Amino acid sequence: MRQRNKPWAKEKLDQYPQYVISAPEQHKGKWQEVFEKNQPLHIEIGTGKGRFITGMAKANPNINYIGIELQDSIIVTALDKIIEEELSNVKLINVNAEDLREFFANFEVDRVYLNFSDPWPKTRHAKRRLTYKTFLNIYEDILVDHGEIHFKTDNQGLFEFSLMSFSEYGLLLKDVSLDLHNSQFEGNIMTEYEEKFSSKGNRIYRCEVQFK
Amino acid sequence: MRQRNKPWAKEKLDQYPQYVISAPEQHKGKWQEVFEKNQPLHIEIGTGKGRFITGMAKANPNINYIGIELQDSIIVTALDKIIEEELSNVKLINVNAEDLREFFANFEVDRVYLNFSDPWPKTRHAKRRLTYKTFLNIYEDILVDHGEIHFKTDNQGLFEFSLMSFSEYGLLLKDVSLDLHNSQFEGNIMTEYEEKFSSKGNRIYRCEVQFK
Ligand SMILES: C[S@@+](CC[C@H](N)C(=O)[O-])C[C@H]1O[C@@H](n2cnc3c(N)ncnc32)[C@H](O)[C@@H]1O
Ligand SMILES: C[S@@+](CC[C@H](N)C(=O)[O-])C[C@H]1O[C@@H](n2cnc3c(N)ncnc32)[C@H](O)[C@@H]1O
Repeated sequence: MRQRNKPWAKEKLDQYPQYVISAPEQHKGKWQEVFEKNQPLHIEIGTGKGRFITGMAKANPNINYIGIELQDSIIVTALDKIIEEELSNVKLINVNAEDLREFFANFEVDRVYLNFSDPWPKTRHAKRRLTYKTFLNIYEDILVDHGEIHFKTDNQGLFEFSLMSFSEYGLLLKDVSLDLHNSQFEGNIMTEYEEKFSSKGNRIYRCEVQFK
Repeated sequence: MRQRNKPWAKEKLDQYPQYVISAPEQHKGKWQEVFEKNQPLHIEIGTGKGRFITGMAKANPNINYIGIELQDSIIVTALDKIIEEELSNVKLINVNAEDLREFFANFEVDRVYLNFSDPWPKTRHAKRRLTYKTFLNIYEDILVDHGEIHFKTDNQGLFEFSLMSFSEYGLLLKDVSLDLHNSQFEGNIMTEYEEKFSSKGNRIYRCEVQFK
């Protein structure tokens, strides 16, 4: 459910058009124009409070990032981080991932990040999981050939479901870690949820899958 | 390394030809003749001391089982269990999994079980892992169309490697559990290694994959 507990959030988002793109459908097929530099485009779906996407943008100035988040009351915190850091290679859009085809042309995106997506544990809600086949179909459309999804979660059930969903869809599993924080993986940038749940002792699962 | 610390083991295996098949190449393509009943054939590779295969044979009288184990000094303990239980639907063969094509015709096997296979953690030993592509190729040859591999291990690195190897080979991930003993899975039969490592607190990983 969309929560509007910060009525001023929408207003604040509108005040920073250089960071929050208010009519993303107008940039479909030409997102490169929105950025200073013409370089690969990575998007994160369900960006939340933006720790990951802003950390990635700082660490990788050679990549353009777009953070996608449904809730204005949450994405506004990601905006604060971008303002503070004055990052020019990350933009935000306050939309539903279901509608991504309206905002991105085929082959326009180089990578999709999914971090700590809502698990929707009940079987009857499986279709809402961001790794359900209808979402994979959207990502396939907007991604380049052999485009990748990089996925992290602490939710065991969601990770198990996602591995099966990826396999069923024909995606190639290129990398998998069943305990990210005790692995060889370098340069991990934690999300807000990752910080919270790993400090409780939860394992973090991660994988990279590629469309064929 | 093959350990011959029980010189009498080979002799004992020879004494029970009704359970231990000494010239398995002679039964290639006609394993059903070796069993009382004509019914699906499931094999376990690296049977060890036989707790799993004998437990499965008892629980599933409608399946024929063959336990395959390289070391005579180990498989002899599996033999003891079969003698004790007088099981007619399980046989043992003391051979190397590398040579399975010599012993089974194409499409002769209905399912392959791999339990707690040696992890061979060093990258330069990857080829020895029983889920390496050359082994998958052997299993594909002897399995029926859409045949399945059911795999359990407590070894995180081996499980991660295997998920990638299965995906790379084009196998479909039909089921996966990242914590078998805390899952909904019913009717699990523990192996000797499973008993030992789960009692130390290790998680057990399990998956089912299918050839397409
Ligand atoms: C559990 S939070 C994780 C946030 C962040 N990725 C992290 O790891 O800290 C999931 C986020 O995804 C957002 N979300 C869920 N479904 C979405 C959708 N269909 N489109 C866009 N955002 C969505 C939610 O609003 C929520 O902020
Ligand atoms: C770690 S033990 C596990 C035994 C048993 N499955 C269990 O879970 O208790 C692995 C077993 O596989 C056997 N093995 C290893 N490579 C093999 C091969 N190529 N062919 C047949 N058996 C093999 C070893 O001799 C050993 O008994």
